[in-house]
Amino acid sequence: MPYFDVASAAPLHPVARQALQASLDEGWADPARLYREGRRARLLLDAAREAAAEAVGCRPDELVFTPSGTHAVHSGIAGALAGRRRVGGHLVVSAVEHSSVLHAAEVHAAHGGTVEQVPVSRTGAVTREGYERALRPDTALACLQSANHEVGTVQPVAEVAEACAAAGVPLLVDAAQSLAWEPAPAGWSLVAASAHKWGGPPGVGLLAVRKGVRFAPQGPADERESGRAPGFPNLPAVVAAAASLRAVRAEAQEQEQRLRVLVDRLRRRVARLVPDVEVVGDPDRRLPHLVTFSCLYVDGESLLHELDRAGFSVSSGSSCTSSTLTPSHVLRAMGVLSEGNVRVSLPLGTTAAEVNAFLEVLPGVVAGVREKLGVHPAAAVPPVASSVEVDALGLLCPQPVIELAKAIAAVAVGGTVTVLSDDEVARLDIPAWCALRGHEYLGEAPGPGGGVTYTVRRLV
Amino acid sequence: MPYFDVASAAPLHPVARQALQASLDEGWADPARLYREGRRARLLLDAAREAAAEAVGCRPDELVFTPSGTHAVHSGIAGALAGRRRVGGHLVVSAVEHSSVLHAAEVHAAHGGTVEQVPVSRTGAVTREGYERALRPDTALACLQSANHEVGTVQPVAEVAEACAAAGVPLLVDAAQSLAWEPAPAGWSLVAASAHKWGGPPGVGLLAVRKGVRFAPQGPADERESGRAPGFPNLPAVVAAAASLRAVRAEAQEQEQRLRVLVDRLRRRVARLVPDVEVVGDPDRRLPHLVTFSCLYVDGESLLHELDRAGFSVSSGSSCTSSTLTPSHVLRAMGVLSEGNVRVSLPLGTTAAEVNAFLEVLPGVVAGVREKLGVHPAAAVPPVASSVEVDALGLLCPQPVIELAKAIAAVAVGGTVTVLSDDEVARLDIPAWCALRGHEYLGEAPGPGGGVTYTVRRLV
Repeated sequence: MPYFDVASAAPLHPVARQALQASLDEGWADPARLYREGRRARLLLDAAREAAAEAVGCRPDELVFTPSGTHAVHSGIAGALAGRRRVGGHLVVSAVEHSSVLHAAEVHAAHGGTVEQVPVSRTGAVTREGYERALRPDTALACLQSANHEVGTVQPVAEVAEACAAAGVPLLVDAAQSLAWEPAPAGWSLVAASAHKWGGPPGVGLLAVRKGVRFAPQGPADERESGRAPGFPNLPAVVAAAASLRAVRAEAQEQEQRLRVLVDRLRRRVARLVPDVEVVGDPDRRLPHLVTFSCLYVDGESLLHELDRAGFSVSSGSSCTSSTLTPSHVLRAMGVLSEGNVRVSLPLGTTAAEVNAFLEVLPGVVAGVREKLGVHPAAAVPPVASSVEVDALGLLCPQPVIELAKAIAAVAVGGTVTVLSDDEVARLDIPAWCALRGHEYLGEAPGPGGGVTYTVRRLV
Repeated sequence: MPYFDVASAAPLHPVARQALQASLDEGWADPARLYREGRRARLLLDAAREAAAEAVGCRPDELVFTPSGTHAVHSGIAGALAGRRRVGGHLVVSAVEHSSVLHAAEVHAAHGGTVEQVPVSRTGAVTREGYERALRPDTALACLQSANHEVGTVQPVAEVAEACAAAGVPLLVDAAQSLAWEPAPAGWSLVAASAHKWGGPPGVGLLAVRKGVRFAPQGPADERESGRAPGFPNLPAVVAAAASLRAVRAEAQEQEQRLRVLVDRLRRRVARLVPDVEVVGDPDRRLPHLVTFSCLYVDGESLLHELDRAGFSVSSGSSCTSSTLTPSHVLRAMGVLSEGNVRVSLPLGTTAAEVNAFLEVLPGVVAGVREKLGVHPAAAVPPVASSVEVDALGLLCPQPVIELAKAIAAVAVGGTVTVLSDDEVARLDIPAWCALRGHEYLGEAPGPGGGVTYTVRRLV
C-alpha cells in the first residue's frame, strides 16, 4: 500500500528507530544535571547537536533543537525581528512560504509590523530581483524556503541571499523540504527544519542562527538550548533525529537519482494519460521526489478518497480537502489551477512498480470522479450563441468551472461566457482554466444581485 | 545505583516504552490527513486524549497536548491573560511556583502587566487568605501549583480555588508534581502538566482549559490541537505519555503508601544522623516521594558531587550548583537555609535497602565536605569578646556562614557578630542560620567600603 505523502510526514527511518530505542535507556534524564544520568544525557545531546550541525552546515553552538519545525520557524522569525527592532519592522517573505512562516508574519503585522510578499512565477519560483525590489532600509528580516512544500520548486536561495547580504538584511531559510537531500543552501542567516520530514521522529525541529546575526529570543526566559527553545529537551527524539539525518544524507545521492527518474516519469505520464490536467511546479529546478498536478473538473476530496480506496495515500492543496474552503495559498500565488489538485511525494525506497501502479489507476479514478460530477467529453455540437451567461450561484468548486467548460462549447470562437459565482475559488480557477485551455480571461465584475461575474472569451 | 531525582525527570515507565514502540509504526503520519495512515494516527491521538483527560479529570475536548510542561504553562498563562484582557492585567502567582510560571509572569510584567506574588509559610505553603488579599477587581488570572517541586509541600488548591471562584478569577493549576498520584485538584480553570515527570517520554505536556474559561491562544495561528499548541503533533510520545499516566495511576495507591514510609524514614533519620541539618517542607501535607533538607556549612555542589561518587543521584536548590549563583527562589521565599541543600525524590519501586544505603553514606559525605571546608566541631573555648567583626568579602556560600559560626563561639551570650559579605546568598542564609541555631538576627546595613554587614546576637 504505497504511501506517497512524505512531504507531509515521512515514515520513521530504521536508523531513527534504533537510535530512539537506544537513547530511551540513556537519554531520559535532565542533561543539565551533574549526576551520572544527567552527564550521559548531556553527552548524547552534545553528540546529536554536532551531527545535526554538520548536516546543516553550521557550528554546533549555532544550532538548537526545538519541539517542531513550526516552533523553529516561529521562534526564529520572532527572535530575528526582535533582534533588529531598531532597524525597523519590515518583514519580507515569499508568497509561497509554508503556513508557519505566513502565520508568524501575521502576528508581526498584528503587532504593528509591515509584511511584504514577494510574488512568484507560474512555476512557483521567486527571483533575486523580486527580493531586491522588496528590501528597504527598514527591512528587519527576509524569509525564503529552500524548496516549495506543495509543488517542489527549488528557490534561488543563494542569489536571494546575495541580495539580502548586499542590503545588510538577514535571511531566514526554511529548509524543511530539502534538508534530507543536502545542507542548507549557502548564504543563510537562520535556518529552520523539521525532523519528521526526513524520517526522524515527530517532536524535533532545528533552528540555526549564524554567529553575528542579531537574535533576541521572545517569550518567557528559559535556560535550555541557549535560551532559544524552552522546556525539557526531548532527548531520545533529538538523538533519533540527528542519527536519521546523517543516515538519509548517506544515501541521498543514490536515492535522489532513483526518485528523480520516477518523478520525471510521473510528470510525463500524468500529462499524457489524464485529459485536462496541469502538471505544476518547475520541471527542472525541483525537489527530486515530489510532483503536483491539478485535474480539471474534479474535486480534490473525492479524488483523494478514491485514490485512498485504491491504496494510494497522497495529499492535495485543493480547497475541497480542507476545512477552510480556501485553496492553497501556494497555487493561488502561482496562478495555477487548484481544483482536483494532487501532490505526490515519494518516500525513500519507492519502487518503479509502485509508481507504475499509481499511473495505472489514476486515469480511471479521475474519469470516475468526473463521471459522478456529470462531466462528459464535449459533444461536437455547433455553437448556438455569441454570448452565454451561466448562473453558478451556490455551486462550489469544481462545479463553476465544469459549467463554464460546458458553456464554452455553446459559443462561437470570439464569443464570451459569463459565469456568476459566489465561490471564492472561482476567482483563482477560472483564470487558471483559461490559461490552460487557451481562452482569454476578460476579468471580473460584481454580480447584479450578489456574487461575482467572470467573463471569458472563447479563442479556440 | 539509585536515582533519586524523579522530581526532575522520571525514568521511562515500561508501559511508556511499549506504547512508544507500538505507535512508532502506527502513529508517524499526519492525523489531519484523510488517508489510512492519517486516520490511524487520528485514532491513536483521539484515544490518547481520552485517556489523558480521564486521568486529569476533564473532557477530552478540554485537553490539548503541548511539546512540554513548560510550553503548557507558558501558553496556558498567555492565553488566559489574553482572554481576560478587558478585565485587567493583574496576575497572581505564589512565590514558590515553578520557574516556567515565574518566567511567564516576567514576560507579562515586561509587557505592562502587574504581577503579585503570594508569600508562603516557612513550610512552603500558601493560604486561602493570602490569595484573597492578592485578588483584585482587575485580576485576570491566578496560578498555584498543586505541590511544590523542590520541597514537596502540597498546596491548599481547593481552598484557593474557592477564593478565586468567589472573586470570579480563573485559577491555573500547575499539576506537574502531583498528576502521577491523582487527578488535578478540584476547582481548577486550567491545568498544566508534564509527561516526563510521571514516567512518560519527554516532549509531551498537557494543557486543559475548562469549558467556559475565556482563552485566547497567543502566538502564530495553527490549526493543530484546537489552535492551542502549534506544530506537528508528537504522536508516538503522546500515546506513550497517556498510556503511562494510566499505568502509574493504577499503581499509585500502593506506591504512595510504600514511598511515604520511606520518606518518613528519611525525614526522621536525616535529622538524627546529620548534625546541623534542616529538613524543610511540610512534614504532613506533602508529596509521598520527596524530601528536601539543607546541611549547614556545606556547599551544594561538593555535596552532590560526593553523593554522585557514592552512587546516588540527587538534586539541589543551592546556589552553588547552578550557573546563576542565586539560591532557589523557593527556599528564599520560605526563609529557610539554602546552603548544602539536597532534594531526594524517589522513583516508583524504590526499595528500603536503597534508602538505607543512602542514609548510611550521607553522614560521612556531609562530614567529609565540612572537613575539606575547614569546619570543625566548635572547641569549648571561653568567649573572648562582646562583639566581633568578620570580613567575608569575596567568600562565596557556604563560607560566610562558616565564618559566622566560628565567630559566634568567640563572643559571650548577648554579644554580637557582624559579618561583612558581598555574597548575595548571605542575605538568605545568615537569617536562616540564626533561626536554625536559636540566635537573634539583628539586620543588615551597607558595608563601609562595599558589601553588606549582617549582624547577629548570640542567644545560646
